[in-house]
Amino acid sequence: MYSPAVRAGNTVYISGQVSFDKEDRVVGKGDIEAQTRQIFENMKAVLEAAGGGLDDVVRINVYLTDVSNRPGFHRVRERYFRADRLPASTLVIVKGLIHPDLLAEVEAVAVI
Amino acid sequence: MYSPAVRAGNTVYISGQVSFDKEDRVVGKGDIEAQTRQIFENMKAVLEAAGGGLDDVVRINVYLTDVSNRPGFHRVRERYFRADRLPASTLVIVKGLIHPDLLAEVEAVAVI
Amino acid sequence: MYSPAVRAGNTVYISGQVSFDKEDRVVGKGDIEAQTRQIFENMKAVLEAAGGGLDDVVRINVYLTDVSNRPGFHRVRERYFRADRLPASTLVIVKGLIHPDLLAEVEAVAVI
Repeated sequence: MYSPAVRAGNTVYISGQVSFDKEDRVVGKGDIEAQTRQIFENMKAVLEAAGGGLDDVVRINVYLTDVSNRPGFHRVRERYFRADRLPASTLVIVKGLIHPDLLAEVEAVAVI
Repeated sequence: MYSPAVRAGNTVYISGQVSFDKEDRVVGKGDIEAQTRQIFENMKAVLEAAGGGLDDVVRINVYLTDVSNRPGFHRVRERYFRADRLPASTLVIVKGLIHPDLLAEVEAVAVI
Repeated sequence: MYSPAVRAGNTVYISGQVSFDKEDRVVGKGDIEAQTRQIFENMKAVLEAAGGGLDDVVRINVYLTDVSNRPGFHRVRERYFRADRLPASTLVIVKGLIHPDLLAEVEAVAVI
């Protein structure tokens, strides 16, 4: 239905990542930290398949379903990015995501 | 008030497209498939004016007002993209769009 | 926690700007025009630090918490962009932003 990532020159557009395993089952129901870890592990895999990694991310868009999950999201996110290579970031609260148990979605642009 | 598309080098940023006709009247009230068709016809026209087409789209962001419209959206979307040139994609459910009868909005980046 | 802007070649990705002052206090509680001014003043400062300005913006994404604030948002926005250099634009209504008193957030891409 879509591509996990599309490269155009050295820019790589990464589809919104959610806390699904390889069979599209939700990982970490009700647990924002577990979901955030799964999201960034999925994103790392997509980036590695494109020849890069999380250090190449220049921008992320974060969609949460509840603002109360923001601290937990950030606690995990901090472990995935180098302090001197933080991406530009936008975070908004949405009405929903593609599955009712998902708490977060993260989209990214990388330059590899 | 805005540009339908802005080119920077070979990258074209396309404004969020909704199911409006040329007089900004909603097409397909209550009908997600009709609205999705109108959106991609509008996007095709914007891309053609920029010298490209839907095959040049590298990323789309989809905003729906109700997750129940996702299957209908995808049924129509599939007809507009070549299976071997699918864009990266993010889909979230929002509280609303710029007119209460709109069910979907799609923003895109193309490389022409 | 994030970078206000990240440059990749001549493309600059600007984080979502909200109506915070330098101590992250909300400016213009309940006043969409005041908040929109603060947002574009903040964005201008970020762009100037990156060696550019609002004329270099090629795309904006606008997130409002209530569609009734759209006219006030647009009234102010018009003063910040040259009529012959309007960015591509997407506007959606979200459930919330990172602080309950925020009415708008604007993210941008510039080419400098």
